Amino acid sequence: MATLLLNADMGESFGSWSMGQDEAMMPFVDLANIACGFHAADPDTMRRTVQLAQRHQVTIGAHPAYPDLVGFGRRSLACSPAEIENMVLYQLGALDALCRAEGTKLSYVKPHGALYNDMMHQPEKLAAVMQAVARFDNRLPLMLMATKNNQAASELAQSFDLRLWFEAFADRAYDAEGFLVARSQSGAVYHDAMVIIEQARRIATGEPLIASDGQPLRLQADTLCVHGDNPESIAAVSAIRHMLTSLVRPAFE
Amino acid sequence: MATLLLNADMGESFGSWSMGQDEAMMPFVDLANIACGFHAADPDTMRRTVQLAQRHQVTIGAHPAYPDLVGFGRRSLACSPAEIENMVLYQLGALDALCRAEGTKLSYVKPHGALYNDMMHQPEKLAAVMQAVARFDNRLPLMLMATKNNQAASELAQSFDLRLWFEAFADRAYDAEGFLVARSQSGAVYHDAMVIIEQARRIATGEPLIASDGQPLRLQADTLCVHGDNPESIAAVSAIRHMLTSLVRPAFE
Amino acid sequence: MATLLLNADMGESFGSWSMGQDEAMMPFVDLANIACGFHAADPDTMRRTVQLAQRHQVTIGAHPAYPDLVGFGRRSLACSPAEIENMVLYQLGALDALCRAEGTKLSYVKPHGALYNDMMHQPEKLAAVMQAVARFDNRLPLMLMATKNNQAASELAQSFDLRLWFEAFADRAYDAEGFLVARSQSGAVYHDAMVIIEQARRIATGEPLIASDGQPLRLQADTLCVHGDNPESIAAVSAIRHMLTSLVRPAFE
Amino acid sequence: MATLLLNADMGESFGSWSMGQDEAMMPFVDLANIACGFHAADPDTMRRTVQLAQRHQVTIGAHPAYPDLVGFGRRSLACSPAEIENMVLYQLGALDALCRAEGTKLSYVKPHGALYNDMMHQPEKLAAVMQAVARFDNRLPLMLMATKNNQAASELAQSFDLRLWFEAFADRAYDAEGFLVARSQSGAVYHDAMVIIEQARRIATGEPLIASDGQPLRLQADTLCVHGDNPESIAAVSAIRHMLTSLVRPAFE
Repeated sequence: MATLLLNADMGESFGSWSMGQDEAMMPFVDLANIACGFHAADPDTMRRTVQLAQRHQVTIGAHPAYPDLVGFGRRSLACSPAEIENMVLYQLGALDALCRAEGTKLSYVKPHGALYNDMMHQPEKLAAVMQAVARFDNRLPLMLMATKNNQAASELAQSFDLRLWFEAFADRAYDAEGFLVARSQSGAVYHDAMVIIEQARRIATGEPLIASDGQPLRLQADTLCVHGDNPESIAAVSAIRHMLTSLVRPAFE
Repeated sequence: MATLLLNADMGESFGSWSMGQDEAMMPFVDLANIACGFHAADPDTMRRTVQLAQRHQVTIGAHPAYPDLVGFGRRSLACSPAEIENMVLYQLGALDALCRAEGTKLSYVKPHGALYNDMMHQPEKLAAVMQAVARFDNRLPLMLMATKNNQAASELAQSFDLRLWFEAFADRAYDAEGFLVARSQSGAVYHDAMVIIEQARRIATGEPLIASDGQPLRLQADTLCVHGDNPESIAAVSAIRHMLTSLVRPAFE
Repeated sequence: MATLLLNADMGESFGSWSMGQDEAMMPFVDLANIACGFHAADPDTMRRTVQLAQRHQVTIGAHPAYPDLVGFGRRSLACSPAEIENMVLYQLGALDALCRAEGTKLSYVKPHGALYNDMMHQPEKLAAVMQAVARFDNRLPLMLMATKNNQAASELAQSFDLRLWFEAFADRAYDAEGFLVARSQSGAVYHDAMVIIEQARRIATGEPLIASDGQPLRLQADTLCVHGDNPESIAAVSAIRHMLTSLVRPAFE
Repeated sequence: MATLLLNADMGESFGSWSMGQDEAMMPFVDLANIACGFHAADPDTMRRTVQLAQRHQVTIGAHPAYPDLVGFGRRSLACSPAEIENMVLYQLGALDALCRAEGTKLSYVKPHGALYNDMMHQPEKLAAVMQAVARFDNRLPLMLMATKNNQAASELAQSFDLRLWFEAFADRAYDAEGFLVARSQSGAVYHDAMVIIEQARRIATGEPLIASDGQPLRLQADTLCVHGDNPESIAAVSAIRHMLTSLVRPAFE
């Protein structure tokens, strides 16, 4: 069984402002999506976050975004594909340089916030992101959201000779089409740790999860996105990590 | 005789605002110091400037600066050495990524404006810049100003296993110590094309130039900084290029 | 006959970057839409532009925008109405302070670029802009685009006890609904000075202009938006000014 | 006896990043120094902070800074006096507009961080700040640091017909000249609540405090700067407030 990797957003502090629980979360994740200065982070924060990831042997990914510190990259900005390609390249290179200074390197790319949403819904923006990653280094996987049907994205990636990593969410409800239920709807976000761990287990083992219409939904995912904003969520991540470890190393071993 | 390379600041437009005569200048220079988004340029401008340099087989250097678009990087900002190291790394990587997208790469580093001035006068800031370049790729030469005595800088560079390129100016008066006469003083900037070309020739051939006190001043320089803000200055650069070519290829060949 | 006022965007330089022909244009216009630092301009540019407007007794308006220097405020940013209200207030106050320093004040408001477009198409964004202006000073007119039917905007303005100024364009083709023909379509922008002056005359006198479908279109407009990017367009503005003056002062006087 | 007013920096959150304990501190202070978007805050944060100040009937002051979000306005930026004048005007106006939207207004000015330090040591920068305040509204007092001899600042203020408010610190050691002992020196910052309250009492009653050389130091101060970064410091502020109240309203009344 392939291991389901845990990924989390990291390095989202900015200057004197602190955000997230990177020190507490890093031990539990496999992949750190590190902010690149456009929605969060500054060069010093990026360097420190790379160092922290290295101490925990966590794989480093770039988390590029629209240029919008005030809005934390969550507000869509009407950019052209060329603008998106170049802003992604810029951010990949910036983070990679801070990795090089620590003797490591960038290993994958996961766009942030509104850029992530836009690329999931607008093929020309997805193509622009893929173009950027492929031109930077086409051995870097691009992470995007697993849906019921990953084929269109996969075919587009093939045209760029690019590898994809699909991610799923353990703490979010899915609709029948395999899209996340909007946060504005009740029940969209799971708070019960048992529910979260069970959904993580189903994703890890390939068992279908239960969509919001009560029907089974099978998601093909390489990685699970986790968040650690507070002690409760960090405890949930720790529990997911423990569950995943138990799957990989059966009890009789 | 080693060739004196011509370097010029390029890619200093920003968004909708245009600056410089990059198209007209690029054919005449060897080295393009390309802005990295902190004092000028945005990812699209950087990409276009890399493409332009490539079309003219011009070597690409990074032109990192303090983060100050309004002040065009000309206002000193009281940064710590660690902040300088990281902001330089960030900018080197950003430009390098746009180079990679065009199948080329960064080949040297020349800090801009107030950062350049500060590193010439504050050894701990020079060390921070050197640290950044060395950690990014210590095969990249760092460009700094030739003075009467380049030894202190050379020794510091050696401690980082870093190579230096010293640059001189053909259109500026030097004082007896080998520093540029301040622009506020009369006679600090040469406007007569013949005077500029003659100073360039002396620097290229290793002949001493005449300092502001009338005494001979010998500058060891690898490259000459040229500017092309208007038709007159571009004509001067063209004339310098012609003079340099004639030095390298004697008439009887 | 009420005078048709000429308005133009001014103060769109930024730091070391220059844009526009403010010195040449200011003598011909009645209203200067001055950038407030979000899409263009910095405090020094704003101060100088206020001084220039005063020297020519031109009325000063604020030209607030989305925060997007790289995109010159032309890229829509998905802001909430509250964010729009507050960013407009911020910019109005900033420009007003620079006016106060020169003994004058802000007299109207015209949003810029994508913010202008968004408010023309999304009533909740128009309401947010109106809320900002009304809370700042409800004696300041808000400028927006004249369409075939200005009633919806007028009713909304009434609910804020706010006055509107409708603007029209002399150098742009209108469709049958009174909207501007998209620049991407051929014939969208007029280049013939005679055509431009004739459309300006019709707008000034209340005669219908000819829409892109050949039918007459009556626009109710208080002001005409003019541009002065080059000598030709400045000459056209000068001609429009002359035509308007001749309308107000009949030849026999 | 004149009341010693308590002032505190407020509204220093930025976008999604939170800073400070404004809700907890506001009830204890008289004067809120509200960030204006250059070192901290965005228009939404400013609006909310103005609302919070109003709910507690706290007087609102502007807290303008150098444009340096990453450095939180703590890094000196080599600006000209004209640049300082205009950037201060810009920020005063911006905050004033958000006050107007809430039916209140700006009542004083206290520069922040490196701008505050620079104006205390460079008369031409102090003059630039005074010029800005005087041109915005010369009824607004400018707050600066009380030293052993406030005369030079007072005379400069008189030339601008401007009123000054001198501030002192209860939690910081003073040297014999009435300057703050640098934070890098041991004993520079007081942590013992009793020591802090006693220094506050001496400042409030006009009794000399004890300088770092053991000698008495008399400071003329209108206001005391307090900080509330954590529960301990908020408790200290509460205790200072109680002490001040007891001074003003003797027990037998």
